[in-house]
Amino acid sequence: MVKIGILGLGTVGTGTAQILLDPIGRHHLLGKVEIAKVGVQSIDKPRNVQLAPETLTSDLDSIVSDPNIDIIVEVMGGIEPARSLILKAIAHGKHIVTANKALISRFGDEIYTAANQAGVYVMLEAAVGGGIPVIQPLKQSLSVNRINRVTGIINGTTNYILTRMTEEGGEFADILADAQALGYAEADPTADVDGLDAGDKIAILASLAFGDRIKREEVHCAGIRKVGATDIAYATKLGYVIKLLAIAERSPDASVAVRVHPTLLLKSHPLASVNGVFNAILVEGDPLGQVMLFGPGAGAGATASSVVSDIVVVIGAMLSKSSGDAMNPLMNCPHQKYATMSLLENLVGRFYVRFRTKDLPGTIGYIGTTFGNHHVSIESIVQTSVSKNGAEIVVITGEVTESNFQQALKAIEQLPAIQSIPAILNVVR
Amino acid sequence: MVKIGILGLGTVGTGTAQILLDPIGRHHLLGKVEIAKVGVQSIDKPRNVQLAPETLTSDLDSIVSDPNIDIIVEVMGGIEPARSLILKAIAHGKHIVTANKALISRFGDEIYTAANQAGVYVMLEAAVGGGIPVIQPLKQSLSVNRINRVTGIINGTTNYILTRMTEEGGEFADILADAQALGYAEADPTADVDGLDAGDKIAILASLAFGDRIKREEVHCAGIRKVGATDIAYATKLGYVIKLLAIAERSPDASVAVRVHPTLLLKSHPLASVNGVFNAILVEGDPLGQVMLFGPGAGAGATASSVVSDIVVVIGAMLSKSSGDAMNPLMNCPHQKYATMSLLENLVGRFYVRFRTKDLPGTIGYIGTTFGNHHVSIESIVQTSVSKNGAEIVVITGEVTESNFQQALKAIEQLPAIQSIPAILNVVR
Repeated sequence: MVKIGILGLGTVGTGTAQILLDPIGRHHLLGKVEIAKVGVQSIDKPRNVQLAPETLTSDLDSIVSDPNIDIIVEVMGGIEPARSLILKAIAHGKHIVTANKALISRFGDEIYTAANQAGVYVMLEAAVGGGIPVIQPLKQSLSVNRINRVTGIINGTTNYILTRMTEEGGEFADILADAQALGYAEADPTADVDGLDAGDKIAILASLAFGDRIKREEVHCAGIRKVGATDIAYATKLGYVIKLLAIAERSPDASVAVRVHPTLLLKSHPLASVNGVFNAILVEGDPLGQVMLFGPGAGAGATASSVVSDIVVVIGAMLSKSSGDAMNPLMNCPHQKYATMSLLENLVGRFYVRFRTKDLPGTIGYIGTTFGNHHVSIESIVQTSVSKNGAEIVVITGEVTESNFQQALKAIEQLPAIQSIPAILNVVR
Repeated sequence: MVKIGILGLGTVGTGTAQILLDPIGRHHLLGKVEIAKVGVQSIDKPRNVQLAPETLTSDLDSIVSDPNIDIIVEVMGGIEPARSLILKAIAHGKHIVTANKALISRFGDEIYTAANQAGVYVMLEAAVGGGIPVIQPLKQSLSVNRINRVTGIINGTTNYILTRMTEEGGEFADILADAQALGYAEADPTADVDGLDAGDKIAILASLAFGDRIKREEVHCAGIRKVGATDIAYATKLGYVIKLLAIAERSPDASVAVRVHPTLLLKSHPLASVNGVFNAILVEGDPLGQVMLFGPGAGAGATASSVVSDIVVVIGAMLSKSSGDAMNPLMNCPHQKYATMSLLENLVGRFYVRFRTKDLPGTIGYIGTTFGNHHVSIESIVQTSVSKNGAEIVVITGEVTESNFQQALKAIEQLPAIQSIPAILNVVR
């Protein structure tokens, strides 16, 4: 039997134990798995899973140093003590299966270096996209392509909120409150709605797609707090939906840009119909073209499915390996260096801008001319009267560099007719 | 260096060689690959890939027995000589990478038995879904779930034809002819339009999803030749699209049904927006829920991407294995027996039926009552006058057993008002 130690028995830990204790009709290797120890804070708490009382312990250190345990499943979350426990488990020669995107995106370098030295695997399918197989495809199947771009809807909470805002026309704060009441958003929603969770995940996907490490602090994250019902309504009218996209792009000069931001997405785009708590990841490469992986981005069952699949993959490797053998180069981390990040001002993209203006004749002409003077082409421009004295002008640009766009915007701000610029969003077609 | 022998230098073979000869920016293991021999029919034919002349040979037997070669890539297609060459290569201890769904769906038993005895891997990511990673996820990540159903749009030619029929309102024969002229359908379109190619592929997916072998001749295949513009128009009106679906389902009694047939699919279904030559596979399991894998189902680059990914996976296993080690149980074929197939009459599903009737009062009532007498519930029923004396009545049923539905249909055929039943199609919501 292969012996598993589980750190944490929350939603994902419970889901993992449920699968492991009920192996019939699943992969035959699950018949070889035994849950040896489960680390919890409170031993007496009632649980949704039947575990022998002697497997539960609050002494997590004893699990990661237990010589009988082969694989440590870390599903406690957070940076500490998860990081220290994982490093200690690695030092004791144990393979690691983790769902901890915050930890891996910040301390992946340290953890994988230790794992490679110890000859153990650190698996993280559950860290991104819940039950969607995306980590293994990126590390293996898709990696024979030159990958140019990975675009993901990889945070279920924000996608749920934006989907409801689109369907109901409501404002962010009201729908967030309702999502919290329904359990789709946490009491402290910061990590989700400010794009930080998506930032952790796209940092991981980018490092797998491009084969270099990514510094988490170089991932630019903008959340959805400022997305208004007005902008969603304009987007709908113009044939777009607004999604929180996580985008990792490799430029022709091999530099890499990794960003999370609310984005207008053309309705015909494969990601535009990914609604509610579902996630999807679009991978674009040469010669493959586009592949999209879609599924449940969270939830006990889905995330546990990915955790257990990593356990099975590690067992497969363990069973086909003698002690002196090299690690499988498709399962360890081959990254040697950090990626060179693209300079923001060189990035090319499309933008949506909403201007509040005085209702003066010629304002559209002024705006159009000023964009043109800064080499910013315009895809569409719409003017709406909103009051006796005011109007709104919405512009979607063509493909422009970030620096040209920002310079144009500065110049337009000086125009006497411009009152304010309530919204600037990226656009993907 | 790992030495590769390629059998066949058609579209996929050429795409494969192009990737292998241009490894920069792709998976680092591709730097360890050398194309040792390529088997072709005609050595002098001009090629879209630069190979050293001495690698080309028309003596395919010499490739599969060459002691220097580690991996044989079979991309010639067809049953013979591919089958004999693969078996001979296995007997010589070589790993196999193949894109040959017709061969594996018919002779997988023989080939995998030989491979397991010889301790070599037979990889087939390219056999289903072109560049979409689906074989490895089904064998590994998704396999920890109890999979109930796999539903695929896995033939690009028929999906292209049906998409155009839906968009243009044209008839099958005209659009097939145009698709042939444009290179989207072959001169002999039988394997595609009669559902045989999709049948090969779903047989393979079913065996992976359910862990038992499937007899190819037990896969029921109906193609799209009889799908008329009329039915597509009715489907559109009722909120459906018509797709050629390949479906593998496991019943609660563990028996398995594997079928290919044109199907009305509710527009909100994840597969309904898969258009043109794209493919997608929806996998449903417990506790995962639904996962969909989407991408290019054919084409040199996409299929070659999957071929080369299999090469990389085999190399990874080779580099981490001593000669005496066991095979990796996640990469070999663990099937021990054939699946028990479900009895057709017990299957539960929904149906679309189009009746040609005389324009007599009470006909809808007769049809409704007769269905009801046979426990067939009706979801929607629509009557259209089509001429002075004739009408069409279209029925979509609720979930019913195949046998109840067939008995109801027999009884309805006896009604004097019924002239003919031009179309019966399955329905998936």
